[in-house]
Amino acid sequence: MRKIIEKEFALNYLNKYGSQMTVGNGYLGVRGALEEEYPEQVRGMYVAGIYNRPSGSTSSELVNLPDVTRFQVMLDDEVFSMQAGKVHAYERYLDMNTGELIRKITWESSNGKHYQLNFYRFASKVAKHMIAAKVEITPLSENTRVKVKTGIDAQQTNFGTQQLAESSLRIFDEKLMVGEYETIESKQRITVATKVSEKGIFTAKNRQLMTDVEQKVTANQTFTLEKISLVKTSLDEVDTEFPNTTYAELKLTSEAAWQDFWAHASVRVESTNDFDQFALDFACYHLEIMTPKNDFRCSVGAKGLTGEGYKGHVFWDTEIFIMPFFLYNQPEIAKQLLQYRYLHLKEAKEKALKNGYKGALYPWESAFTGEEETPEFAAINIRTGTRQKVASAISEHHLVADIAYAVCEYEVATSDAQFMVEYGAELLLETAEFWISRATSRNGRLEILDVIGPDEYTEHIDNNTYTNYMAHYNVKKALEWNKENTDFEARAKIFLENLYLPVANESGLIPQDDTFLQKDWINLDKYKAAQGTQGILLDYSRQEVNELQILKQADLVMLFYLFPKMFKAEMVKENLRYYEERTIHDSSLSKAIHAIVENRVGNREQAYQFFQEACLIDLGSEPHSSDDGLHAASLGAIWLAVVFGFAGMDTSGELLEITPNLPNKWKSIAFEFVWKGEQITVKMMPNTLQLSKSTKTVLELNIYGEKQQLTDILTINLERKDESL
Amino acid sequence: MRKIIEKEFALNYLNKYGSQMTVGNGYLGVRGALEEEYPEQVRGMYVAGIYNRPSGSTSSELVNLPDVTRFQVMLDDEVFSMQAGKVHAYERYLDMNTGELIRKITWESSNGKHYQLNFYRFASKVAKHMIAAKVEITPLSENTRVKVKTGIDAQQTNFGTQQLAESSLRIFDEKLMVGEYETIESKQRITVATKVSEKGIFTAKNRQLMTDVEQKVTANQTFTLEKISLVKTSLDEVDTEFPNTTYAELKLTSEAAWQDFWAHASVRVESTNDFDQFALDFACYHLEIMTPKNDFRCSVGAKGLTGEGYKGHVFWDTEIFIMPFFLYNQPEIAKQLLQYRYLHLKEAKEKALKNGYKGALYPWESAFTGEEETPEFAAINIRTGTRQKVASAISEHHLVADIAYAVCEYEVATSDAQFMVEYGAELLLETAEFWISRATSRNGRLEILDVIGPDEYTEHIDNNTYTNYMAHYNVKKALEWNKENTDFEARAKIFLENLYLPVANESGLIPQDDTFLQKDWINLDKYKAAQGTQGILLDYSRQEVNELQILKQADLVMLFYLFPKMFKAEMVKENLRYYEERTIHDSSLSKAIHAIVENRVGNREQAYQFFQEACLIDLGSEPHSSDDGLHAASLGAIWLAVVFGFAGMDTSGELLEITPNLPNKWKSIAFEFVWKGEQITVKMMPNTLQLSKSTKTVLELNIYGEKQQLTDILTINLERKDESL
Repeated sequence: MRKIIEKEFALNYLNKYGSQMTVGNGYLGVRGALEEEYPEQVRGMYVAGIYNRPSGSTSSELVNLPDVTRFQVMLDDEVFSMQAGKVHAYERYLDMNTGELIRKITWESSNGKHYQLNFYRFASKVAKHMIAAKVEITPLSENTRVKVKTGIDAQQTNFGTQQLAESSLRIFDEKLMVGEYETIESKQRITVATKVSEKGIFTAKNRQLMTDVEQKVTANQTFTLEKISLVKTSLDEVDTEFPNTTYAELKLTSEAAWQDFWAHASVRVESTNDFDQFALDFACYHLEIMTPKNDFRCSVGAKGLTGEGYKGHVFWDTEIFIMPFFLYNQPEIAKQLLQYRYLHLKEAKEKALKNGYKGALYPWESAFTGEEETPEFAAINIRTGTRQKVASAISEHHLVADIAYAVCEYEVATSDAQFMVEYGAELLLETAEFWISRATSRNGRLEILDVIGPDEYTEHIDNNTYTNYMAHYNVKKALEWNKENTDFEARAKIFLENLYLPVANESGLIPQDDTFLQKDWINLDKYKAAQGTQGILLDYSRQEVNELQILKQADLVMLFYLFPKMFKAEMVKENLRYYEERTIHDSSLSKAIHAIVENRVGNREQAYQFFQEACLIDLGSEPHSSDDGLHAASLGAIWLAVVFGFAGMDTSGELLEITPNLPNKWKSIAFEFVWKGEQITVKMMPNTLQLSKSTKTVLELNIYGEKQQLTDILTINLERKDESL
Repeated sequence: MRKIIEKEFALNYLNKYGSQMTVGNGYLGVRGALEEEYPEQVRGMYVAGIYNRPSGSTSSELVNLPDVTRFQVMLDDEVFSMQAGKVHAYERYLDMNTGELIRKITWESSNGKHYQLNFYRFASKVAKHMIAAKVEITPLSENTRVKVKTGIDAQQTNFGTQQLAESSLRIFDEKLMVGEYETIESKQRITVATKVSEKGIFTAKNRQLMTDVEQKVTANQTFTLEKISLVKTSLDEVDTEFPNTTYAELKLTSEAAWQDFWAHASVRVESTNDFDQFALDFACYHLEIMTPKNDFRCSVGAKGLTGEGYKGHVFWDTEIFIMPFFLYNQPEIAKQLLQYRYLHLKEAKEKALKNGYKGALYPWESAFTGEEETPEFAAINIRTGTRQKVASAISEHHLVADIAYAVCEYEVATSDAQFMVEYGAELLLETAEFWISRATSRNGRLEILDVIGPDEYTEHIDNNTYTNYMAHYNVKKALEWNKENTDFEARAKIFLENLYLPVANESGLIPQDDTFLQKDWINLDKYKAAQGTQGILLDYSRQEVNELQILKQADLVMLFYLFPKMFKAEMVKENLRYYEERTIHDSSLSKAIHAIVENRVGNREQAYQFFQEACLIDLGSEPHSSDDGLHAASLGAIWLAVVFGFAGMDTSGELLEITPNLPNKWKSIAFEFVWKGEQITVKMMPNTLQLSKSTKTVLELNIYGEKQQLTDILTINLERKDESL
């Protein structure tokens, strides 16, 4: 039962469910807005790669496209709305098994007439341009005149920002409605076509192309209206014809594709808490629908295709938090995400040059063109009238090494030599060249000055440990893959030998950066209690926060996560304790990573708690936390927490290592894991690990530090690790 | 009791009342949208002269400005909406005596709690930049946590077309919210400032600057929130400070100004049908709030400031239908409307030149710049995909003479010699020059070819009688006012002597144009039964309609109206009968004019019926007829029908003539009439006419064809005219 369920209709939660109940397929995403209008309800349809830079703005925005989801229903001249009359029965759920969003309402109108209204919607997982919708209306009291108005509504904007000019509106064969639009600045052409199953009266006015269908419906008979819609854009290389098809036909093929997806991509846990499985399914469903397939010109925005938060821009979230889900399930998608970066090497090199560096400096935020899209200024401070410059584009450089890390991770998992020849080696080289040019000679060593690490509450610092280690890794791996480049080799070696890599001080603490440990600190209980709200910024200025030992999110802990073997467990544990105390977890990228590192050092219960809290980022009770869209990286991190945390997968050595450490509440974890082209089925229970694959090749693995060989099936009895080391 | 009343809340009528219940002052108009959101409800605030041409469009549009009218009310976490719960008592009315819009609701929430909610709103008639609003909430059942969210909402667009870029959002002194915007193309700067009477929490996001006020309210206590807003633009020459004032203070001065207005501008009729008086008040109220004061850079759009129909463009409606209301009440406003045309003589001359003519060819539609704003193409035919060229800008030239006519009307009524020296004579000269260049020598005379007359169902015809006569009058009057210009005189005389002025044929019919009387005709009953809907165009193409004797609106009858003495009554009567039979009255400019001409020829009952039907154009029961705004010209024509129809005022002679002819249902008409600087109080009853003024000058008048002298009071016994001549 993979269902996202809304048990009762509540206006206050409309946009949270709107994000959660997005249907999509990586090509497009359609928010789970209700068919009828409600105050504050945000409708949204987005196509990967369709951005537009509004006049006067420095950033492109993911375009909210003309709507096809809205249905105005009139029953004997009474407008259907759940605000009116009485809802006698209500259920709404997104069936993640099939990708279908279903709503069933037994409604009594203000006039005391009873109706059954059912709404269905999905985006085809096979025919990526297609959205199917269906409305069923059954008058339960008496014969009713049913009117349904629907069509293509281009009054949609990004909260008042218009992105599209209307090019033409047409009706073909008295059936097919077609709207053509063009993004105002980026000049992408969009076609939205739709057809309903009953003949109606067409109107075109005020950016709406509508049909009005009217029918007398006998009591207890069901009026059914299907609406099949197609969206295509000038990014599509092949022109798509409007197919002659039905809701049921489209559903059949789409459902089969979803079944196939779940068969391979699901992670199944047996937990005393059903919510764990639900959160995992929720994460997998959304990771799947947010990610473009077969199109390396597009990557994944910070909210996927579920909303307009962060303007749909691509961050390091994609490589570090989202890509692994695909790398170990559908590695060709991971490859494609890296190709997106390779495609924009040119723009990254231009950005480096412009900023006085060499090599490739990737934009902190990017969209379709690969240019820097980070807004130059943050939102105005409405009290002071000042705007703070956003420093990320200028100083948050770790992204460069994060991308390089992802390239290496891909190579390790796939051994895709061809990829390295075509893209990987060059990408490593250019990112490494950036780091070499980025370092400054000071104190008899190379230092990396004035950066922002993952912790964005600490800006403009020198020698951020995360950044320095990542840069070192980047250059080291670049050297491995560019051995013939002797010119680079010389520079790389100097860099590697001289780059300052902070180590633990006498108290065993690794400094986050040059000054962090000298700063004051304050009790953060108040802010930790309201994690995710950035409440600290209401009491302290950014400048003041910067002068205190306050972390927004995992920073050094992030480094521990990415390099499981780099630091001794005892040191990790010590630093984890110290830094966690100072971390508010105001970023959605934080808790799941803490969960993984806590689990590795044996704090299983603490890990499980972090995991559960991470699951609540989009699934908690706060009504507006996901209004702007789901936290894409956080969803990736839920998967990471299970697979790289509790299941203890470790790909950082020569062999695949597995060190499971299940939460007490879990009886088992089962998933598939693609490694070196082999599809391994993993099943772990507290005392048993079972691996299987269908090929006959021998795969060497390291399980709990012992070498093992997997041919077809391998079963190992495990000893539980102690809670304390 | 001057009230526009909505007796019950009905979603279907929201936008009709939204237009009808506009509050304003000529500087700005704020649609009567309800404070809370409803599906399809159109909110709108417009400032005279603030237009913007969206990218890709050939026309400027009246800009829908950031909203200050919306209030989201939460009562114990339940959203207030009349769709929900139960409305136990409801009244909404716009008190035209005070300009205040008031709504009172006794509401039971879905949870069974009772509340009294009252909403008040007005735009100050004195402080033109100010809008005041007030909300009163009284929990009737139990103590309640009341939350009100309001502010400045720049998510407003013109149906999805964005006109404004957000420049800055600020809070001053923890009270005053200020949003600054700029129109994207026309670069007009807009400032919207607002302040609420209770402290709240401010937020700025997604083009909204909001405050959230929360209070615990004891049962039967009233929570009151006032909101004072200010709108100013870069068109304002003086910078306006935000005043420290209250709802009550603003209302006091505004109300006084409204009292003063009604004291002088009202037309009072005693009718057995109260609706007559209401329709007249409605017309006067809206004429007053749609018309800019003290700013000749702005004129009156086709929907005033009540909606976005016709993009807020200025047509001949202003001079012929709207200006007289002001000319005979507040002549300085009439002068200002003519100055608007004088201001744009330059653009009119440019248009003439561009089209191969001399003199001044005014644009068929204009906005702020005075350039031609008529869309080049009509809306696309969604079935064929073709767009028809809009011919009005190229051929509907009578507007030029209409403006000249208004200049002469102004001069006759005011004897404002200074105006004629400064503006009038030149305007007459340049418009006359246009006609001289426009005429073609053919058939041994001058003809005016390929025009559209007032009847827009008949396009591209030669020698439209209305146009030819109006052109003749234009040149004749220009000659009178430009006697020293001998060069012009010569050309003008040739034109006047040779211009073809169609006369009645052997059947007594004056042809509408060269070919009209030769065309076929069809029974129009079906279309007349659905007047105003342009239903004929669903059955016939425009081309087909053009080939039939079908009139959209008064054409020759319009000429009869403007020149009461030009044609003999018998001939007028004959032609009226003929043409009315062929007129669908699909234009809102038609019926009131027919009413006047019918009345003049003695068809009092027919006249009264046309008058009443004219009043229904915006006040009838069709729910969507005024969604895009009120029909400004039609409102002017309601006033014309009473004053120039039933009251029988006639300013076309040397003396003011009065020939009253009251409908049977009317016992009296009373109004003030400004003539030659004298303010005459007119009161007519079926058998008595009473005129009075407060000065001691002697004014000669012509009453029922007899010369009379008015010093202070003049009472005359009247004989009723027969129904037939």
